[in-house]
Order: sequence, then structure tokens, then C-alpha cells
Amino acid sequence: MSETTGRRGRPGHDQQAVLRVAVDLFNRQGYDATSVGDVARELGLTKSAIYHHVPSKEHLLQSAIDEALDALTAALDAVSAAEGLDAGQRLRAAVRSSVTVLVDHLPAVTLLLRVHGNTPVEKAALARRRGIDERLAAMVREAADVGAIRADVDPLLTSRLIFGMVNSMTEWLRGDTDGEALADTVTTLAFDGLVRHED
Amino acid sequence: MSETTGRRGRPGHDQQAVLRVAVDLFNRQGYDATSVGDVARELGLTKSAIYHHVPSKEHLLQSAIDEALDALTAALDAVSAAEGLDAGQRLRAAVRSSVTVLVDHLPAVTLLLRVHGNTPVEKAALARRRGIDERLAAMVREAADVGAIRADVDPLLTSRLIFGMVNSMTEWLRGDTDGEALADTVTTLAFDGLVRHED
Repeated sequence: MSETTGRRGRPGHDQQAVLRVAVDLFNRQGYDATSVGDVARELGLTKSAIYHHVPSKEHLLQSAIDEALDALTAALDAVSAAEGLDAGQRLRAAVRSSVTVLVDHLPAVTLLLRVHGNTPVEKAALARRRGIDERLAAMVREAADVGAIRADVDPLLTSRLIFGMVNSMTEWLRGDTDGEALADTVTTLAFDGLVRHED
Repeated sequence: MSETTGRRGRPGHDQQAVLRVAVDLFNRQGYDATSVGDVARELGLTKSAIYHHVPSKEHLLQSAIDEALDALTAALDAVSAAEGLDAGQRLRAAVRSSVTVLVDHLPAVTLLLRVHGNTPVEKAALARRRGIDERLAAMVREAADVGAIRADVDPLLTSRLIFGMVNSMTEWLRGDTDGEALADTVTTLAFDGLVRHED
């Protein structure tokens, strides 16, 4: 009986709670430097209680990466499916969405951006991330082709700089941010720049 | 005699060469995960030959971080000392310089941006980096105060986004980049935005 209770872990510490604490530790001290024992200690649980909830450390990494990639993919799918948007408006919506996804899934997106591809899970994540980057670059190219944005800057470079600006927010953003207001600011800066236009 | 020769290391492998290889390894596999033995292996030298050139792994980190921070500080000093620039032009020059310093000192700046402050060397680097960030934020504030840039975005947020865009280039930039052309592009995007202004 007591072993069964131990394997079920404490009430309230479900898989989501383990994931939340693990991702926080991965972001603070690095994935490689974090053990399942560290996660257990942070939650006040035994290692075996953790293994009752999740099969491995890599499974936690995979879950967080999937959360970030699924949210980004769904946001881009919604932008692509939206009716009545021209290429310029679609790009604007994609920039907005990339900010709100980052704010809404900050720990998962932060972890995704730090993945550097040493394991199969990380390599698969990088491949999916490249796919998203290519979709974003294609949106920039389409907006340039129809004259909605400047054509004097290479679309791939533009895409890297604008989404590099978005992604850089993981360096300083905290959990209590107003995502809509921040999305407004980033979109304004990206499309209209710093210069004050008087008219 | 043979021990003396060993301690001097191979000809051509001076302190700068050791530093270059070490910083490359730190950036590829992480500072914590890199040993002086790894650096020696990469250079085809013994560990004791490396210790002939540099006192410690931390000394290599310190040298690279100093290279990046000294270059950034010198660039901002030059911008501040330049005569005949208004606050808007000073900010524009600071953005340009931050790009050319990043291109000219790419491995050192990349390493600096990955430092997260676990040791005294890293903590000191973060403190100096914060000082530079504050100088940049003050330049944004001054440009906003004189009406050279939009006043509807918080200067600290603006500063983080623009220099976040610049710093994000370390994720994909390679060594053979034309720094002046890239500085033009980044400055154009930062100040004029993506939107094509027809007039």
C-alpha cells in the first residue's frame, strides 16, 4: 500500500506541475545541468514520484518544445487561413501573433530558443523551428512582392532581424506582461520604425 | 631542453591563437562543458603547453569578454565625443556602431551575450553590460526628448527591442559578413521600419 501511494506522488503535483517546474529549472540552469533529482527536490518529491508522472527528462523537454512549436504553428495557420487579409496585413498579423505566443508561452518558447540540437529530440525541434522560420520568411517575401513593405532589404535578412527582435524578448520578459500592448509596440516599431512621422 | 621546448608550445600558437580556439569552443559547446584539455586537443598541443600561454580557463573567458566590452565601450565613447551630432543622429550612430562592433568581434560578443553570471568574472561582465545597456537607453531617451524619435513607446522598451534585434544576429551571423552594409540595413529597419514610404 505505502509503495503504491508513493508512486502516485503528492496530490496536486500532476504532470503539468512537474513540467512547469522542470522548464523553469532548464531555463535557469540549463537542460544538461538539470537532473530529474533537481526537479524532484524543487517539488519536495522523491525521484520515483516524478517518474510516476513523466517517463524521462527528455520527455519533459519534448513536451515543452511541442507546446511552443504547436502554439507558433497554430498562430501561423490562423493567420494564413484568415480571409480578407492582403500580404502586408498577413505579415503584420504574423508579427503580432509571434509576440502574443511568446508572452503566453514564455517558459516554453524561451527553452525552445535555447535548444542547440545535440539529441534527436533537439534536432527534431530545430527542424520544426526552421520550418516556422521559412514560413515567416515567405510571408516577408510575399509582402515585399506586392509592395506592402520595402523591397530594398533582402526578405530573409528582414525576417531574421524582425523575428530576432521578437525572440530577444525572452532575455528580459517576465510573466506578468500585457501581451496585447507589447504586440502593438513591437508591430509599430517593426513596421513604422523609430522615426516620428509628422503629417 | 626538451621540457623547455614543450613549455614554449609549438611556434605560431601564441596566446591569441589559444584564445580564438577557446572562444570558438565555448560558443559551440558551452563554457562550463569546455575544458582546457579540449582547447589543447583542438590545437594539437598538450595541456601544459596551453598553461604556458594562459593561466586558466577563466582567464580566457575574461579576455574574450573584455574584448567585447572594451570594443562596445570605445564605440559609445566615440559616438558621445563626436561633435555636431544631435540626439537623433547620436542614437543612429550608436545603432550603427553596435552592429559593426558585433560583426568585427563576433565570437567575443556572442560569448558575452551567453554569459549568465555564475562566477565573479561573469557577474562583473554582466554589471559592465548593464552599464552599456543603460548608456544606450539614455541615448534613446534623449532622442525621444528632442522629438527625433517617436515618444509613444517607452524608451527602455525601445532600447531593449532595437538592441535585442542587433544582438539576435549572433544566432545566425557568420564571419564573412560586410559589416557596413549590414549596419545600413539594421539602421534603416530600426529607424524607418518595414513600411515603404512613398513620396
